[in-house]
Amino acid sequence: MRHQVCIIGGGPSGLLLSLLLRRAGVDAVVLERRSRDYVLSRIRAGVLEQGLCDILREAGVGERMDREGFVHDGTIITAHGTTVHIDFKKLTGKSVMIYGQTEVTQDLYQALDRIDAPVFHEAEDVAIHDADGDAPYVTFRHDVQQHRIDCDYIAGCDGFHGVSRQSIPQAVRREYESVYPFGWLGILSETPPVADELVYSGHERGFALCSMRNANLSRHYLQVPLTDTVEQWSDEAFWTELKCRLPSHLAETLVTGPSIEKSIAPLRSFISEPMSWGRLYLAGDAAHIVPPTGAKGLNLAASDVYYLSRALIAKYAGEGQLLADYSATALARVWKASRFSWSMTRMMHQFPAEGAFLSRMQQAEVEYLANSPAAQTALAENYVGLPY
Amino acid sequence: MRHQVCIIGGGPSGLLLSLLLRRAGVDAVVLERRSRDYVLSRIRAGVLEQGLCDILREAGVGERMDREGFVHDGTIITAHGTTVHIDFKKLTGKSVMIYGQTEVTQDLYQALDRIDAPVFHEAEDVAIHDADGDAPYVTFRHDVQQHRIDCDYIAGCDGFHGVSRQSIPQAVRREYESVYPFGWLGILSETPPVADELVYSGHERGFALCSMRNANLSRHYLQVPLTDTVEQWSDEAFWTELKCRLPSHLAETLVTGPSIEKSIAPLRSFISEPMSWGRLYLAGDAAHIVPPTGAKGLNLAASDVYYLSRALIAKYAGEGQLLADYSATALARVWKASRFSWSMTRMMHQFPAEGAFLSRMQQAEVEYLANSPAAQTALAENYVGLPY
Repeated sequence: MRHQVCIIGGGPSGLLLSLLLRRAGVDAVVLERRSRDYVLSRIRAGVLEQGLCDILREAGVGERMDREGFVHDGTIITAHGTTVHIDFKKLTGKSVMIYGQTEVTQDLYQALDRIDAPVFHEAEDVAIHDADGDAPYVTFRHDVQQHRIDCDYIAGCDGFHGVSRQSIPQAVRREYESVYPFGWLGILSETPPVADELVYSGHERGFALCSMRNANLSRHYLQVPLTDTVEQWSDEAFWTELKCRLPSHLAETLVTGPSIEKSIAPLRSFISEPMSWGRLYLAGDAAHIVPPTGAKGLNLAASDVYYLSRALIAKYAGEGQLLADYSATALARVWKASRFSWSMTRMMHQFPAEGAFLSRMQQAEVEYLANSPAAQTALAENYVGLPY
Repeated sequence: MRHQVCIIGGGPSGLLLSLLLRRAGVDAVVLERRSRDYVLSRIRAGVLEQGLCDILREAGVGERMDREGFVHDGTIITAHGTTVHIDFKKLTGKSVMIYGQTEVTQDLYQALDRIDAPVFHEAEDVAIHDADGDAPYVTFRHDVQQHRIDCDYIAGCDGFHGVSRQSIPQAVRREYESVYPFGWLGILSETPPVADELVYSGHERGFALCSMRNANLSRHYLQVPLTDTVEQWSDEAFWTELKCRLPSHLAETLVTGPSIEKSIAPLRSFISEPMSWGRLYLAGDAAHIVPPTGAKGLNLAASDVYYLSRALIAKYAGEGQLLADYSATALARVWKASRFSWSMTRMMHQFPAEGAFLSRMQQAEVEYLANSPAAQTALAENYVGLPY
């Protein structure tokens, strides 16, 4: 087979890249290791920056989002007795959209189906060849057959554990990492959200986040030690702990119910530079991971995909500078969003090994935030997304 | 002897407190362990917030400051190839004053001399008695004689190593501390400043600060390991290293010359709560230490003294609430300024043990700062001083 661009990874970034390229007449193919059902069963973030919403609308996949999603004009940050309402709309003129990553993925699948864009699911043993040469190709196994795709460019959208980043020689890669000494225990429950907006709650027992998917589907998280297991946390224990970590007016109105999903995820900051090597270009989690505080993961993947699609389209139109600059362009935004995710994680979580001083600095930060429109604006402009 | 208020410590906070009280008719005495010449020989910070300038003017000691000091409407932050001018005046409407702490101290001495306010120098073995009772008193040795001052209230303005904080029982005190893994090597030289404003420079070899006292007196600092000694640093080595840590346009114009003072100071964040116990009230370094990044030490001492003078004056006028609230009032500002000093120290210095990730977060922070008026405003409003 021959395609202009071979996209490895059929999560939201790979699918969005395929759609953006195909709408501009560039022939792209997607290889995904898992089944379509598996991809759609993954529960992920659900806070979309305005920039991502605009991209989805322009790509013709914004209709259901605009109908079913929830526009949030702010968020609530509460810690140690201080509660701050961050009014995105007033401070930045922008908002965010609450719409699950799974829903975005589904909309992208449907849009690709409509234009018969090729997506190989359950593609096994994907391998990248000659990415640093003029004639790269990708091999994989599908339906017990071996396949080869010759292409001009390879897009690595296959996440942290994918083959794309690993295909860049170690001597070329510079990797930066910070691993946090805790994880997030998350549950999904068919209960109404505790507030109209997301609630980020710092507490001496640990961080908690009240998030939602819709009016009767809530997603809640607790900071837990990395040694904890899901089995240790009954639903009852979860709700009791969550109530304890919320301000009393929220704890009192919290509606509890059985969990329909429960999992623990570690938190990590990771960035690999450069984001390109020869004719291979990385996007999203393949190149960088942010902790979920501030919900930047999907949004960063989207800005990578936006930069990469624009650069590839320009390249096929005879203008190569954007593609040559892709890594630097994407990384400039990646570092800033990583900084925001890191600083918000540092502000809101307990770090027992770092002692009481840090804890009081966090408290002072929230108290300062409560009284400073400038600090609120800085937080808001990062939360709604720095300009592309 | 009997005085209404016994002030322990004759640095700028003790002297300012005495002046503010005496101008309102409250009888205060000052005990200082060192000689007047020694106190005046101490070289300290020289960046005064507008709030402190206003207090000095209102206390009648602002004249020389307004004549000889330099108003700075901004500062320069540069790191890893990015230079940001923080325009205090434009962003906050406020400025800072460059005027040495030694000069402030001298002006305060003269003002106290004019009103014959009692200041005991070389007061030895100062001890606080019955601070938690109704009749506290202070004993000390002066000119080989033993003295006793009975008083209503004791103000502890005697710095980190003074007796005042130590007089509060350990069981009452909550102490918070962070010690930084480096010090500041500072030199004073009769050379013109490298720029019209202070230059904070982050560099992979370590932080540098170019500060000044006047048009021909510069104060420069380098981040150095705590194991370094002054003897290891020749003037030539200092200037070479400083040039290396500055952006080239500043390094090229830097005028060097022999040092007239050279010292290494460790960096520490420290806060002791509460700031009062019985009839003893702490102010300034006696209760808290900030790292010098951002120049908050003297300014925080001044806000403590302002709150305490106001509270004591009100108490003598029959209104006790301000004095009862003194510790909480002062600490609210102390924690915020400590947070700023800590975060600016974290942003600008190298922390080798924390790895390359932190270093890149610092770089991202300066790049974000360069492009965000909101982040610049947040920095500026802290630098010029949060409201009293």
